[in-house]
Formats: sequence, C-alpha cells, structure tokens
Amino acid sequence: MIVKNNKDIEESIPEEKGIRNVTRKILIGSQDGSENIIMRLFKLLPGGHTPYHDHRFEHVVKIEKGKGVIITESGEEIEVSEGQSAFIPSHEKHQFKNPYQEPFEFICVIQNQDKIS
Amino acid sequence: MIVKNNKDIEESIPEEKGIRNVTRKILIGSQDGSENIIMRLFKLLPGGHTPYHDHRFEHVVKIEKGKGVIITESGEEIEVSEGQSAFIPSHEKHQFKNPYQEPFEFICVIQNQDKIS
Repeated sequence: MIVKNNKDIEESIPEEKGIRNVTRKILIGSQDGSENIIMRLFKLLPGGHTPYHDHRFEHVVKIEKGKGVIITESGEEIEVSEGQSAFIPSHEKHQFKNPYQEPFEFICVIQNQDKIS
Repeated sequence: MIVKNNKDIEESIPEEKGIRNVTRKILIGSQDGSENIIMRLFKLLPGGHTPYHDHRFEHVVKIEKGKGVIITESGEEIEVSEGQSAFIPSHEKHQFKNPYQEPFEFICVIQNQDKIS
C-alpha cells in the first residue's frame, strides 16, 4: 500500500498545442504500481485552458476547487464548480477553461493507456 | 458529456459482512456510460469501518474530508487525512476505519468489474 501527500507530488506543466496556464500532478499512477487507473490533479490558473480535443480514452472528473467551464462537442459551455462530477466519453471533443479569477482544480481519472484496447 | 451535482446523487448503505456506519455514492459509473472506471465517494461516520478484506481489483483513493485510518495487510495502522492519496494493489488486505469524531470521506476509484481480467 502507498500513501502520499498530494502537496509533495511534483507538479508538471503539460506542453501540448492549445494548452495554457495548466499544471498537472499524477496523484496515483503506474509509478505507484497502479496497473489500470491513473488519477491526475489539474490546476488551471485564471485564463488557463486545456486543448479542445478528443481521444480514445474516457475522462472521469471531479471538481475539487473553484469553478470553470467545460466546452462540449457541440460547443456548449457548461459551468462547473466544486461539488460536481463529470464524465466525458471516449472520442468526444471537450475543453476545460478557467475564465474566472481564482484557480480551478479538478481530478481527471483515466485508464492506464497501456490497457486501452 | 454528463455533469452531475454530487449532492443530488443517491446515497446507499452497502450491506456487507464487517461493514459499519458507511455510506456510498457512485459519482460516475456504468449508468453514466463509463466503460472502464467507477468513481465512488465513501463516507464513514464516527466509529464506521469497511470490511478487512482483499479483492482482485485495485483501489485508487483520495481523501476528501476529515481523517481516518487504513489498516494494511501487515496490520499496520496508517492515519490518513484530507490532502493525501493512496493506492491499494489487487489481492492486498485492507480496511478503512474512522476512530475519530468527525465524518471521514474519500473517493475510491476502481475498474469496472466487467473489465477485470
């Protein structure tokens, strides 16, 4: 069994086209022995956003702090805030944005990509 | 895409041998279209505990509120609190307990059991 302090986990800055003011921590992943599930914590600073993209893996999301916006495949903007959860199916376009003045934090759980069939 | 308010999700009382004062919410699961990942929110009231057991699926855990204790396979008691994450490998014995005076809440993510090989 592994127990970790989230504050001690190294924060990385994902470098990808269409991403801005986003940091990521892998709370639990392959390096902890997890074979199937990866739990990431994302922080979007004010003005930050992830790419508007889709991929073959699902997203299981829980908003942890602040509020933000998820852009859907149809272009709809859904405001989300602490106390909400979200599910984004595989191959469905989406984007997370923080148009507000406070940091927006959420966990985003994915399958270990080695396991995606 | 699905967005839900966690407070609107029905709370159930898992009935299992060795469980006491525990409630569970499925934040995201098969009913939302999630094929691979199930995110559950557990609340242990003071004196509550899960069974001391093991199973073939991994647990990816994030403490959300309060503090509690995880009993490991060797019988060690690890105090955990908000701001920590934990990983419990498959087939490793474990138990969650709340010996404190305030509710202890954590999310526990598992693989969809239909997908476990």
